[in-house]
Amino acid sequence: MQDENKKIRVGIDLGGTNIKIGLVDQENEIIASTSIPTYAEREAEAIVQDMADAVKGLFAEKQLTLADCAGVGIGSPGTIDSATGTVLYSNNIKWENVPLAGLLKERLELEVEVDNDANCAALGEAKAGAAKGCENAVLLTLGTGVGSGVIYHGELLKKGGELGHLILVKNGKMCSCGRRGCVEAYASASALVRDAKEAAAANKKSLLNKLCVGNLENMNGEIPFRAAKQGDETAVELVSSYIQSLAELATDVANCYHPEKILFGGGVCAQGEYLTRPIEEYVKDNVFGGKYMPKVEIGVARLGNKAGIIGAANLVSIEAGREA
Amino acid sequence: MQDENKKIRVGIDLGGTNIKIGLVDQENEIIASTSIPTYAEREAEAIVQDMADAVKGLFAEKQLTLADCAGVGIGSPGTIDSATGTVLYSNNIKWENVPLAGLLKERLELEVEVDNDANCAALGEAKAGAAKGCENAVLLTLGTGVGSGVIYHGELLKKGGELGHLILVKNGKMCSCGRRGCVEAYASASALVRDAKEAAAANKKSLLNKLCVGNLENMNGEIPFRAAKQGDETAVELVSSYIQSLAELATDVANCYHPEKILFGGGVCAQGEYLTRPIEEYVKDNVFGGKYMPKVEIGVARLGNKAGIIGAANLVSIEAGREA
Repeated sequence: MQDENKKIRVGIDLGGTNIKIGLVDQENEIIASTSIPTYAEREAEAIVQDMADAVKGLFAEKQLTLADCAGVGIGSPGTIDSATGTVLYSNNIKWENVPLAGLLKERLELEVEVDNDANCAALGEAKAGAAKGCENAVLLTLGTGVGSGVIYHGELLKKGGELGHLILVKNGKMCSCGRRGCVEAYASASALVRDAKEAAAANKKSLLNKLCVGNLENMNGEIPFRAAKQGDETAVELVSSYIQSLAELATDVANCYHPEKILFGGGVCAQGEYLTRPIEEYVKDNVFGGKYMPKVEIGVARLGNKAGIIGAANLVSIEAGREA
Repeated sequence: MQDENKKIRVGIDLGGTNIKIGLVDQENEIIASTSIPTYAEREAEAIVQDMADAVKGLFAEKQLTLADCAGVGIGSPGTIDSATGTVLYSNNIKWENVPLAGLLKERLELEVEVDNDANCAALGEAKAGAAKGCENAVLLTLGTGVGSGVIYHGELLKKGGELGHLILVKNGKMCSCGRRGCVEAYASASALVRDAKEAAAANKKSLLNKLCVGNLENMNGEIPFRAAKQGDETAVELVSSYIQSLAELATDVANCYHPEKILFGGGVCAQGEYLTRPIEEYVKDNVFGGKYMPKVEIGVARLGNKAGIIGAANLVSIEAGREA
């Protein structure tokens, strides 16, 4: 590797439960990776020390040294000040004003960049996944909440881009962020599960109940789609309203940034075109400027968990590393 | 002016009724201006010929020649392809695929740039008005519709930025754009007037009726505020809901772009802090990231009609003119 100096970057996906770490080459392939437990209740210093040790372990495993590395990128949950590499606040890992980049730099003599985990996933999909080659693309991840990352002019949009917290219903349901009516309160995977449980409880004959084997605690984000595909009326209505909420969000995203592609990530990806086709149709018919505007393609994320690592690694530019 | 070569730019604000034209100096002062009727029912060529003649007239008036000029910027209503200077569609002047920049270049041998009129107004406010000095700012203009322009990293955001067509109410009121529930259908000046007429008709004792001198056709965007300030219950409720709609829009804008300033333009500007203070408070409490995010200031536009001319002129960079 000596002749390809500084072409390895480290990508770290910091989560509340695990920290996933990968060495990423210039083709955006993960050439080595590991996962360590976060034990988030510990002091930040201890967590960062484990992170540094795991990175060194990966370098040793691949017989590389830190001199082969352009730098480290970290995707962290929460609100990040990417200019200083500080986690301003994360509910997930209970951090407040943690100078993450600084703490890691003390332990690894490398450039360290930090950004939000959803932003990193979007960057990963743009560099090596379903949005590769796009100048403008948006990733919307449907999980407990609705995460989002915006690629604008080939780069991460550093300000804003909190698209799960756009309003969908004035004076609507309370969102976890404290605002009423956010799309996240209607279109997250959790919201789908909540609404499916309610619909099943209110419609005892619905197939939704049977698919939960009589216990609504078995409900997940896939069951409503399965029931709808089998023609269950309650599920059809539920899924149709859910898809419309996603379509409204996608239309808002198109009106805000008009990207070439909008990708959905999370478990719901498995629905593929059953999900993306009606949304694409809705955006086409409802985006401002209509037929005069370039088409916005709706797709699903492709990299899964790898997106976070690859995106985080891409917070560091290979060129920057060379100059350093 | 010979020693300050190429420092004049022409700004044109193309409207359905009038075309306003100004010569703009490097301090963003309008040193000469004129207004000519559009007579929008004519062929585009005839309209552009009048535009060219009026520009030449202004140069003659100031004893300048085209050689003193860096170029011409035009703010046009409708959907614009700014890369080619084409008006893709304007409902206002009934144009479809008009190569506006090309037509004007044939008549004036100058660089010609075209962008949307709301974008130009935002650029004007950012260069010389209430958002001067901001790196990121958004202008929302409340009139028949809700116009918007986004300044990001000191430049016009060229993709998206159609913020009047973000959703406010899923399955809500039909918007002029064909989508249901857009904020424009609730928060434009027209929507306020429509809702005020309805409220007055439904509440005969409301002061709103008296202020219309018994004829609801006299309703305008100022009367509801006047009645609310006098404590009229119907008007207080109406204005409060209207301000909340604007506050939801501003919160969405903050979540999308997190600008330093969001400005409101249009007649409603006259309400000043009565309007901006509750919106600023709402955004502070409801923006994602809350207290960890930099403050978003809410203000009103300052340049009025001049914003369009100054902003259009700024589509042309003085540097570009020098190089040409």
